[in-house]
Amino acid sequence: MKILDLKQIKKVLSSIDVIPAIEAGFVAYSRGKAVIPPVAEMLFDNPPGDVHIKYGYLLDDDYYVIKIASGFYDNPKLGLSSSNGMMLLFSKKTGEIKSILLDEGYLTNIRTAAAGAIAAKYLAPKYIECVGMVGAGIQGKLQLKYLKSVTNCRDIIVWGTNDKELKIYKKEMELIGYRIKTTKNIDEIERKCNLIITVTPSKKPLLRARNIGKGVHITAVGSDTPEKQELDSTILDKADIVVADSLKQCMERGEIFHAVKNNLISLDKPVELGNIIFGKNPGRTNEDQITVADLTGVAVQDIQICKAVYSEL
Amino acid sequence: MKILDLKQIKKVLSSIDVIPAIEAGFVAYSRGKAVIPPVAEMLFDNPPGDVHIKYGYLLDDDYYVIKIASGFYDNPKLGLSSSNGMMLLFSKKTGEIKSILLDEGYLTNIRTAAAGAIAAKYLAPKYIECVGMVGAGIQGKLQLKYLKSVTNCRDIIVWGTNDKELKIYKKEMELIGYRIKTTKNIDEIERKCNLIITVTPSKKPLLRARNIGKGVHITAVGSDTPEKQELDSTILDKADIVVADSLKQCMERGEIFHAVKNNLISLDKPVELGNIIFGKNPGRTNEDQITVADLTGVAVQDIQICKAVYSEL
Repeated sequence: MKILDLKQIKKVLSSIDVIPAIEAGFVAYSRGKAVIPPVAEMLFDNPPGDVHIKYGYLLDDDYYVIKIASGFYDNPKLGLSSSNGMMLLFSKKTGEIKSILLDEGYLTNIRTAAAGAIAAKYLAPKYIECVGMVGAGIQGKLQLKYLKSVTNCRDIIVWGTNDKELKIYKKEMELIGYRIKTTKNIDEIERKCNLIITVTPSKKPLLRARNIGKGVHITAVGSDTPEKQELDSTILDKADIVVADSLKQCMERGEIFHAVKNNLISLDKPVELGNIIFGKNPGRTNEDQITVADLTGVAVQDIQICKAVYSEL
Repeated sequence: MKILDLKQIKKVLSSIDVIPAIEAGFVAYSRGKAVIPPVAEMLFDNPPGDVHIKYGYLLDDDYYVIKIASGFYDNPKLGLSSSNGMMLLFSKKTGEIKSILLDEGYLTNIRTAAAGAIAAKYLAPKYIECVGMVGAGIQGKLQLKYLKSVTNCRDIIVWGTNDKELKIYKKEMELIGYRIKTTKNIDEIERKCNLIITVTPSKKPLLRARNIGKGVHITAVGSDTPEKQELDSTILDKADIVVADSLKQCMERGEIFHAVKNNLISLDKPVELGNIIFGKNPGRTNEDQITVADLTGVAVQDIQICKAVYSEL
């Protein structure tokens, strides 16, 4: 049994490509070959916090994974990150624990960024003029890091509301080879970028439909609850293809949830990312299409990234 | 953060009394001061196995606990125990992990044995002539170990079906100060013992009502699913007091479940162990009463034993 701390996990991650593992996870999920029971949760009032236990396994596999992820929102006052957690990998043949990954929530960030890269790989136009990043936090940085392997475009416009955060974003992302323009005006992203990624916790739509032109792909990453929303739902109506990481989950939360609830798209419009990867549904078929991917985060991503790290030990 | 293996956990256990912590847990549970969400589970076919995630916290407390317990029933063929698992203790203020107890399922056995001792403490007659143990496995041994602190009786009749197991039971329990008589005839226990503990996985009633006389207390430990049953349900009808560790859980599984389903006792007959400890409901009030405690195992016991071990680190 191996126990890894965050430093050791980051070292392993630097030497592996998690994207194929997570693609395989989406495919297994969409083909009904993954067992993902309902999320278990605890909610706390004082101090405010929540704990989610996500768990499951692939049918054709030797392991099951249990992920514990917490958010305690007063932690920054104590100098601690609000998110924390771990992943546990067990033998599906004996129940023995094989590995404890004390990732403090980091692997969740990475599997989310990898899913963004996968969405871009299958849905973004071939020629990307400029990438728009709506949100300048940790996830906005990781998205660029993982996007590098699936696109050639290095020109980025990043939108944010905090000058200091934008300045840090620019500095850090230029160090890994991007040209970064910062903006506080979201119009700029809507008009100039044909690959847009939204990574905010916004509860009001940020991107409007009117400026979204032909040939744009949008990956919405931020909304993972029924309250959060980053896209004006009419964008999903306007889109030629709407993709969910999990149809089941996207009917309960995220951008698709809002669009269906407001009768702007029909229930049968969204298709599942795993089915696009697998070829059951087409992805982008021409350069003029508008496409939207709604990523709410599925436990199969956790299972796959945990196994990918474990397989390197 | 501290990680303990089974050997270290056993060492800590040898120096602490877990009974007060578990009593306090039952009281908190019955007074509505514990939050115990529904159990999360995974079931496997090949090889056959199941995983249960039990979790929760006490309202007036600094921690939450997540227990993972598995049963893989082909493990003995591989020379492994069928049960396995761990307990995780987190700060309820920050979500930080404080301790990982790699107990391999052992703490579940201990908290179960401790609950048996607690039931005997509040419900058994004052003068115990002879203790009857129905079942000669691990739990039957642990029950005697923990019973020692709450009773003076050292005369035991143990019932089993396997000569070798009975022989080992006798030898081991005599080493810790008991006088053991083995039997394959359950009548002997029914007629001679006034404290009876059942610890088998039986799916058919073993104890019959007709031989159960005045002044007997029975603690039924083995039945923790809707299928398992150790007591003829008419015993619960005959009993003056029927006690559940959790009323909610005992309506879905265990001896009370069977008695209610067969209309042998009314829904309002069973009272909760925590309410007896706390004094809200009387326990045994005279030496002639027949009492039955149905223990199905509640997550609050896991929370309390995990904290008890952690507090010694």
